Amino acid sequence: MPTTEYDLIILGAGATGENLAERAVQGGLTAVIVENELVGGECSYWACMPSKALLRSAQALRAAQSVPGAAEAVTGTLDVAAVLARRDSFTSNWSDDGQVKWMDGAGIDLVRGHGRITAAKQVTVTAPDGTTTVLTARHAVAVATGSRATIPNIDGLRAAAPWTSREATSTQTVPASLVILGGGVVAAEMATAFAGFGTAVTVISRSGFLGNMEPFAGELIVKALRKQGATVLLDTKTTKVTRSDAGVTVETDGQSITAEEVLVATGRTPRTDDIGLDSIGLTPGEWMNTDDTLLVRGFDWLYAAGDVTHRALLTHQGKYQARAAGDVIAARAAGEPVSDGPWGAHVATADHEAVPQVTFTEPEVASVGLTDKAARAAGYDVRSVDYKIGHIAGASVHADGYRGTARMVVDEKRKVVLGVTFVGPDVSELLQGATVAVVGEVPIDRLWHAVPAYPTMNEIWLRLLETYGRPT
Amino acid sequence: MPTTEYDLIILGAGATGENLAERAVQGGLTAVIVENELVGGECSYWACMPSKALLRSAQALRAAQSVPGAAEAVTGTLDVAAVLARRDSFTSNWSDDGQVKWMDGAGIDLVRGHGRITAAKQVTVTAPDGTTTVLTARHAVAVATGSRATIPNIDGLRAAAPWTSREATSTQTVPASLVILGGGVVAAEMATAFAGFGTAVTVISRSGFLGNMEPFAGELIVKALRKQGATVLLDTKTTKVTRSDAGVTVETDGQSITAEEVLVATGRTPRTDDIGLDSIGLTPGEWMNTDDTLLVRGFDWLYAAGDVTHRALLTHQGKYQARAAGDVIAARAAGEPVSDGPWGAHVATADHEAVPQVTFTEPEVASVGLTDKAARAAGYDVRSVDYKIGHIAGASVHADGYRGTARMVVDEKRKVVLGVTFVGPDVSELLQGATVAVVGEVPIDRLWHAVPAYPTMNEIWLRLLETYGRPT
Repeated sequence: MPTTEYDLIILGAGATGENLAERAVQGGLTAVIVENELVGGECSYWACMPSKALLRSAQALRAAQSVPGAAEAVTGTLDVAAVLARRDSFTSNWSDDGQVKWMDGAGIDLVRGHGRITAAKQVTVTAPDGTTTVLTARHAVAVATGSRATIPNIDGLRAAAPWTSREATSTQTVPASLVILGGGVVAAEMATAFAGFGTAVTVISRSGFLGNMEPFAGELIVKALRKQGATVLLDTKTTKVTRSDAGVTVETDGQSITAEEVLVATGRTPRTDDIGLDSIGLTPGEWMNTDDTLLVRGFDWLYAAGDVTHRALLTHQGKYQARAAGDVIAARAAGEPVSDGPWGAHVATADHEAVPQVTFTEPEVASVGLTDKAARAAGYDVRSVDYKIGHIAGASVHADGYRGTARMVVDEKRKVVLGVTFVGPDVSELLQGATVAVVGEVPIDRLWHAVPAYPTMNEIWLRLLETYGRPT
Repeated sequence: MPTTEYDLIILGAGATGENLAERAVQGGLTAVIVENELVGGECSYWACMPSKALLRSAQALRAAQSVPGAAEAVTGTLDVAAVLARRDSFTSNWSDDGQVKWMDGAGIDLVRGHGRITAAKQVTVTAPDGTTTVLTARHAVAVATGSRATIPNIDGLRAAAPWTSREATSTQTVPASLVILGGGVVAAEMATAFAGFGTAVTVISRSGFLGNMEPFAGELIVKALRKQGATVLLDTKTTKVTRSDAGVTVETDGQSITAEEVLVATGRTPRTDDIGLDSIGLTPGEWMNTDDTLLVRGFDWLYAAGDVTHRALLTHQGKYQARAAGDVIAARAAGEPVSDGPWGAHVATADHEAVPQVTFTEPEVASVGLTDKAARAAGYDVRSVDYKIGHIAGASVHADGYRGTARMVVDEKRKVVLGVTFVGPDVSELLQGATVAVVGEVPIDRLWHAVPAYPTMNEIWLRLLETYGRPT
């Protein structure tokens, strides 16, 4: 009879669950993950990796086309079949053999099936064949079941069998036309990818575009999408969706668009509706509310990490939370001291005001920390400065006609950086410098000594600092 | 009669002189720059900008060729004529009209001619037509005359009229074959550029390659150059050079190589041999020795900045010194307080142990701070960790078959990062995160909260930290 008692039981084998288990096992605990789909989760098969793979080839091609000397060598167009094949290789053709092997090597057990909490420290797993196993946790249960696309309550939408991020990132064919509902990161990335494939893309957003970011981010992306040939409708309400032999017809106040497919990218819903939360007094379908050690409020044995917490719906933040949670569960189990003050080893402090995010569009959007608006709303004494990235020598060498904008948001009281946003081609790798500055609370007067190498695009730092002024 | 008295006289209108003047003028001083060649200096016309322009197109093309989907669209090869034409545009065809206009707008006067210090606070300028003007400084004279290529004492070399970095970066034709003497950054970059143009390149280094960097940097570059088709001879002494109708013949211990041109890239010599240093008791031809406010030791009115100080022979460090020097000259002239403690506003502290540098080869080398060896030599209690960049998801999406290495050097006593080196394709923009960490002295336990965005190459940070271990 297999083991059914573990120090730690984790629901969900996505990047968050895997990292949480790994840290706990490294801390001396036994751990099992319950997974009903593919080990590796959303990010590996239906989100970050396939979407980045769908976008990268076009990005590299456009980069070459924007530099004389290289541009002349590019005579063809994007090979969409090759892009899809490369995407398939990054998702291992939706096989989780490699990840299962990794789990095995990491000393983490796997139970396939649907896990539901049935009592304190108890999870009952229903296997694909219908048999059930009751697992018992000596110390903790952690929920890392993630999120799924929200299907908004629009007349006819669900019946029209819309694409979500899953179908868009895993498609084996490229539709001739695509309507995308939403104005967030998924909408922006998939509009960029499919427009690059030659699909006639229409994006319909109820409000603006990339609304949580600095306003110029959405503006530059919308401009770029339109230049790519996409139609972008802002502040537009979708009233009805109908599928027929002609495709999917999307109706808004005033117009009707018919396309081969419709992609819903209007937000995320926590996958907590059927994991037994009612058995322990929580409400199924709700986000899980944790403290900074990822302990679910009101419990001493229940943790949650990743999207399901609604702290920051990003793979890297889920993994970050997982490291803190795995370590703290191990520490508490061993009766060791817990470092739970701000920026301690057992907390996910950065979730609050130091979250980095990259939108892999063209131009890219890379941001960390607070926007000017968010910083003011949080009560900071704020001064923000902007600078055009295209004026940087490194950017002008990088690509002819480079256009982009950067903003630095400064806390005037402490003279530290609260947030930075870069929008421009190939800015994603510029972000870490900003993240270290924000998280490290490095004072502005010290940042003046962090000299950017010439001629790189990072010289944007010098220009932002010059624009801000040097404290003496 | 034109003004001949200024608060500040600067010798040399390179990036360093320009920035020094700009800061001083912003601080309320009057300033004049004396320049005998082009305003903008070495970096604008014969170094950083043209060399980067010569390298960028091939880099962009190789990036596209390394990603299926894009690779299929590349059917041609690098258009060398287009690369040279683009390089010409970045050097404004060696016209300084634009920079002269900038100086004018910045309120900086320009005197064309050869400037020599003829007494304390006095500079005599010999104009191209032979007339002389005596300039007087109320507060300070700053030397920013830079450096030139060293021509080593090799039998026949000078008579063979070798190329230096100037001829290599400004060439209008691509030689069929080229011998490069040296194993530093200029040798590495020019070998990469010309090998990419189809030139048969032979590099001869007296010792190793990129010897001041982490050992794997030179190893990876040599390997890449050889893969590009270049011949690289290490630990090889050049004994004789002869120019004949057949080209230039370079003899070493044991072999003889004939090529169309020979490029000398064996180091730099300060341009202080003919600026009147003898008139104030200094030795012509020597590097200038300054304190951290860039004041030349033994003087209260003489400053030096940029290559000429031998602090760090890099444009961005010269500009960094220039900012400190321009500000401190203005502050001292006004009798204002001077911030000359470590990391103060008036010192170039980063020159000592926090210098960033990028070598724009393929792969690129980006480093900041101390190498493992240098840190040990400086007496630190050091632990270094390495990680293969190719194992990062972001790198694998960036390019098929990505290969690279990163090293983080940690001060075990203070638990801060002393240095970081990245070697791999397109790593240059990763550097600023490391520079902020080193300069900001951000503790390792805080760096764990500086989450790299997934999937970017910056996730190398997470792997370096995991390899190092998490302090609790």
